[in-house]
Amino acid sequence: MEIVTLKKLAGLLNVSQSTVSKALKDSHEISRETKDRIKDLADKLNYKPNASASSLRRKTSKTIGVVVPLITNSFYALAMNGIETVAQRKGYHVLIYLTYETYKKEVDSIKHLQNGIVDGILLSLSRDTTDFGHLEDLKNRDIPLVFFDRVSESMNLPWVTVNNYDSGFAATEHLIKNGCKSVAYLSFANHLSTTGNRMNGYIDALSRYSIQTNKELIVECSNNDEENYDLIKKLLKKRNSPDGIFASIERLALITYRVCQELKRNIPDDLKIISFSSLETASLLKPSLSTMTPDAFEIGRKAAEILFENIEKKNYKGKVERITVPASLIERESSARSAI
Amino acid sequence: MEIVTLKKLAGLLNVSQSTVSKALKDSHEISRETKDRIKDLADKLNYKPNASASSLRRKTSKTIGVVVPLITNSFYALAMNGIETVAQRKGYHVLIYLTYETYKKEVDSIKHLQNGIVDGILLSLSRDTTDFGHLEDLKNRDIPLVFFDRVSESMNLPWVTVNNYDSGFAATEHLIKNGCKSVAYLSFANHLSTTGNRMNGYIDALSRYSIQTNKELIVECSNNDEENYDLIKKLLKKRNSPDGIFASIERLALITYRVCQELKRNIPDDLKIISFSSLETASLLKPSLSTMTPDAFEIGRKAAEILFENIEKKNYKGKVERITVPASLIERESSARSAI
Repeated sequence: MEIVTLKKLAGLLNVSQSTVSKALKDSHEISRETKDRIKDLADKLNYKPNASASSLRRKTSKTIGVVVPLITNSFYALAMNGIETVAQRKGYHVLIYLTYETYKKEVDSIKHLQNGIVDGILLSLSRDTTDFGHLEDLKNRDIPLVFFDRVSESMNLPWVTVNNYDSGFAATEHLIKNGCKSVAYLSFANHLSTTGNRMNGYIDALSRYSIQTNKELIVECSNNDEENYDLIKKLLKKRNSPDGIFASIERLALITYRVCQELKRNIPDDLKIISFSSLETASLLKPSLSTMTPDAFEIGRKAAEILFENIEKKNYKGKVERITVPASLIERESSARSAI
Repeated sequence: MEIVTLKKLAGLLNVSQSTVSKALKDSHEISRETKDRIKDLADKLNYKPNASASSLRRKTSKTIGVVVPLITNSFYALAMNGIETVAQRKGYHVLIYLTYETYKKEVDSIKHLQNGIVDGILLSLSRDTTDFGHLEDLKNRDIPLVFFDRVSESMNLPWVTVNNYDSGFAATEHLIKNGCKSVAYLSFANHLSTTGNRMNGYIDALSRYSIQTNKELIVECSNNDEENYDLIKKLLKKRNSPDGIFASIERLALITYRVCQELKRNIPDDLKIISFSSLETASLLKPSLSTMTPDAFEIGRKAAEILFENIEKKNYKGKVERITVPASLIERESSARSAI
């Protein structure tokens, strides 16, 4: 039996495919008579909307969803600008959903958005997400998803992220080259692709310079900033406290600044600091903060472009694109070589 | 005259109340004939949708929309946390929409969200918004709206904002008391309720201390940070340059810091600065920045509570709540009295 397509219907009725599609969706643009004529034939021929029809359907919301763990971090605010640039060109709305670093809210957001609200999703994983079952349904519904920043390396989905390993290596190497003998790493959720790979870069850089990794110098921080403050303070009050700190995320560098204020440690003379960060005020801090700065705008822009390629493609089973965008080492006072 | 209810209509037509409700909303589930029959009678009897019927409809999305001009500003990130706290307790999703300070995107966002996506909207006006026609339709659709931060004082709608006038007065007074003779105001979109009232407070504080307002000291800044940089640089290079600056928004204070770096002006000795700001790093800047800090979390929380009262209320025509939340003057190095 021949499969009845939208094209076939349009040909038989001598109208455009778009008219058929709109009529079947009961669009106000199409007259009642034409709708009835189209629907009658679709019923008679037992027409079932197929993938191509549903790709037309998906275009109706003209909206993409961006699911991120937080917006207090300057990275996401900048990435959002990159996403917006692309969405605007395409005439799409952008809806933002915050997960507040929780798996539960991430699951809720995906379930909610896939309900006809959006045509595609950009996702940066929450801190608590280790299971990806909630993303399976998107495939069935033919709603494309592209990871950005915090990605899943195990799922067969496209992503755009920072070159976390190389940047972690370079940040650590920078501290060593500027005189640090004992570099600590302030970690955050090492199961995440971002901070996990930054730590791998840190460990390998130590090894390259024949420095043994000391587990006591890897501080596992959490979402609780008071706890983090205490952990960092404890680290700096150790008998053999480090002379350098590489912070995996900017919040932890700022807490380190506050701890140094309290303990009256001089940055960079007593302690050198570098941090992954897109903080706008980094150059205005006392002392100005050396950063490893990802191109957040470009990451957002590129992820959005891949998403639209997938939304617009008739056949959404092409190549799975994975892009790594470099970060820039910006040397400022906080990691400067001390005068001898 | 008897009030015509949904129930009454349903009884007269011998259909269910839900059918009447759906027909009046032009639902696809109801046939054209039935719709016409119901709408005709509703028109004849001058039926007005009442709160109870629309509250049934409104509960379906379990989502509120938050429309804000930007998220690079720390105020909105913190306000979002306050909103989230309430929404979470109510079991609601929160969708965020950025207008990037444009009227067009604000109109688009309201049109988009009112299309069944959300049950209520929290809005902080964009810089370019001076006309409020796009908000009229929300009333007809019985979708409550609460302004927060940047509010419309002319519309009969609830709002929660900072005590902008008093805070503007207090910030200016603080600079005068710490020795400034010539205080400039970095303004931003004075038609906005926030920055406009801050300027009124500034002008009245000068007057209280018998200082004449000098129009050359009121600098109208824009969304373009390069232009703002040049404007502030020009201000500080004047023959009679000011010895104090009150920045209406934090971005302008940060630009002033950069200009002072370039011109080698000492803050606070050559120039004292205070800014409206929720910036987390204010205390870590060089020098630490004195701020007038609104309780952003509380403003978001309170606005969300009022929104939910309006969403849940059977009769959504109660009192229009308008709440002003105080800001705190946080004195730091940037405005400190100079040693004599």
